[in-house]
Amino acid sequence: MTQQQTPAGKRPYNFSAGPAAMPEAVLQRAAAEMLDWNGSGMSVMEMSHRGKEFGAICTQAEADIRTLLAVPSHFHVLFMQGGGLGENAIVPMNLSRGKTADFVITGSWSIKSHKEAQRYCAARIAASNADDQHTKLPDPSTWQLAKDASYVHLCTNETINGIEFQQLPDLTALGSDAPLVIDFSSHVASRSVDWSRVGLAFGGAQKNLGPAGLTIVVVRDDLLGHALDICPSAFNYKTVADNNSMYNTPPTWGIYMAGLTFQWLLQQTEGSLTGVAAMEQRNIEKARLLYDFIDGSDFYANRIDASCRSRMNVPFFLADESRNEAFLAGAREAGLLQLKGHKSVGGMRASIYNAMPLAGVQALVGYMREFARSHA
Amino acid sequence: MTQQQTPAGKRPYNFSAGPAAMPEAVLQRAAAEMLDWNGSGMSVMEMSHRGKEFGAICTQAEADIRTLLAVPSHFHVLFMQGGGLGENAIVPMNLSRGKTADFVITGSWSIKSHKEAQRYCAARIAASNADDQHTKLPDPSTWQLAKDASYVHLCTNETINGIEFQQLPDLTALGSDAPLVIDFSSHVASRSVDWSRVGLAFGGAQKNLGPAGLTIVVVRDDLLGHALDICPSAFNYKTVADNNSMYNTPPTWGIYMAGLTFQWLLQQTEGSLTGVAAMEQRNIEKARLLYDFIDGSDFYANRIDASCRSRMNVPFFLADESRNEAFLAGAREAGLLQLKGHKSVGGMRASIYNAMPLAGVQALVGYMREFARSHA
Repeated sequence: MTQQQTPAGKRPYNFSAGPAAMPEAVLQRAAAEMLDWNGSGMSVMEMSHRGKEFGAICTQAEADIRTLLAVPSHFHVLFMQGGGLGENAIVPMNLSRGKTADFVITGSWSIKSHKEAQRYCAARIAASNADDQHTKLPDPSTWQLAKDASYVHLCTNETINGIEFQQLPDLTALGSDAPLVIDFSSHVASRSVDWSRVGLAFGGAQKNLGPAGLTIVVVRDDLLGHALDICPSAFNYKTVADNNSMYNTPPTWGIYMAGLTFQWLLQQTEGSLTGVAAMEQRNIEKARLLYDFIDGSDFYANRIDASCRSRMNVPFFLADESRNEAFLAGAREAGLLQLKGHKSVGGMRASIYNAMPLAGVQALVGYMREFARSHA
Repeated sequence: MTQQQTPAGKRPYNFSAGPAAMPEAVLQRAAAEMLDWNGSGMSVMEMSHRGKEFGAICTQAEADIRTLLAVPSHFHVLFMQGGGLGENAIVPMNLSRGKTADFVITGSWSIKSHKEAQRYCAARIAASNADDQHTKLPDPSTWQLAKDASYVHLCTNETINGIEFQQLPDLTALGSDAPLVIDFSSHVASRSVDWSRVGLAFGGAQKNLGPAGLTIVVVRDDLLGHALDICPSAFNYKTVADNNSMYNTPPTWGIYMAGLTFQWLLQQTEGSLTGVAAMEQRNIEKARLLYDFIDGSDFYANRIDASCRSRMNVPFFLADESRNEAFLAGAREAGLLQLKGHKSVGGMRASIYNAMPLAGVQALVGYMREFARSHA
């Protein structure tokens, strides 16, 4: 897929936290195939999910995400609906067996996950960074893990707070044999996953993989088959797995768009690196550029501890917050969209997912520098 | 929206039961707007669901479906995820209060709904046409409605069996004051709805309204706020309503495509009729053409009682079923796609939703006539 039609640089840079920017080549291809996918005479949206055409799209998408994320064969990949908030209920309905589950609180999303799980199990807080205003991660050596936890939940990248685990904890070394559940919605495919430390990973697609309405679940085989009776069939992982994500009609367009994104990701290279490794390299570079600029400026500030700053979501504040509206208006004029911070945090936030090129971050830094200079 | 680019008649006719054919003008517009919606510089898939652009799309879509379906102001319209199968659990989680609910069994979908509801309440069978192999509707005067039912569930068009309620029952006249819940997935917007007889209506969008992954729920205000504790927040009707369908990230692309379809529907006319009334007239004509042809032929048969044949889904059988493969292969060659019947029923099925023009049914009848002649 190469870029067509739209002249380079014509589209603005979109820093939305999600739904978020998608690769332009993916959008171009979706537009070109809208009325006739691959000579079928149908739009992908018009295909029976049980027909051979959509079957081929779905099979390829699953194979490609397995390649991209190096998913081991003893994990299932499920295409579901309901997003991360849906999974906050679906995970405990499937995994908790009504017993104890441990939550590590690191920001807004893990707080929501913990709260929702209380409907289904004894949801404990094993650790929390609330006293640090979610600006640093609780040290794993201090986590109070329950002996009988059915699982341990982490949000490995907190989209709203901009805080990210740079590596996954080794629960075994911490004395727990519970499976680790990670909500990787907002950094999936931006870095590799150490599956030896994971029991289940879930993510809404709308940040780094595709459109809203598709949820990706990667779950280890042995965790299937333990759902509570009150788990809806459509959200029972075993039922979904046994039916290759077609127990109910899947979000076919979302799977198609994610599949195009997987192919785009597999084609990306940085030096000798490809796929997620190439993206990780590029994401390190993008994040460094932005954080280094912020750290070197008195005009802007980021409040997250340097050891756990998110590569994907960069909240920042103007020293003089009365300039916020002017900053946003100027940014829009400069073709830099959706930079307003989440209402619970305030300030600004630049989400720089896989689809954001280095040139977009360079443009943002250039604008920020000029704005600081002219408002000093 | 007018048709562009693709020459008239070039696209095949797609009789898929769902996901199903969409209006070509809607697909053309989606392709044209893919990289830049309305000068925003963003694809609809790239917009924050909380931004003003998507807010405008969503508000317009809700206003348009309210107009189309003449939804009274004391009903909420919710855009959700999970499809009809999801709603089979979500409805009893929200409405049953753990008590009794009545189900009228008329085919495959109502059987599934009844079975799933048993997880959450005392799900009774008030009537069933199983002894008639789902070929006629149980007479409302024979329904055994519970005095204390929290609701009465009907599937008003059984997609697989091809059987449809031509009018909604008046539960009050039948001695029940329970709200009527209708699954109108496969005939929504093909005919008017008598809301005075309905408490809640739900439907997956992928048959008559848009792409898979979007569920439409229309629910009377007084039915909100009674969910079971184990109802996931993302599927709690009151939570969804209180947040204007944005409690969690909605399926933004699905809402956009459904919105374009609503606009297309509002523009349709037949004589002095517009919108759903125009579609109903057109659907009556399409269905009559196909059923009249089948009834006048010894080569084809439809087994549903004439009083309750579906206008949307027309299952039919070849008298000599050894011709099935040849019939389907010839149909594909003639540009008539996805005519194979559901595996549980066999034979053929032509789904002729709103997006299927009369010319498509004429082409199908022409092919069937010629196939019968040449295989007599």
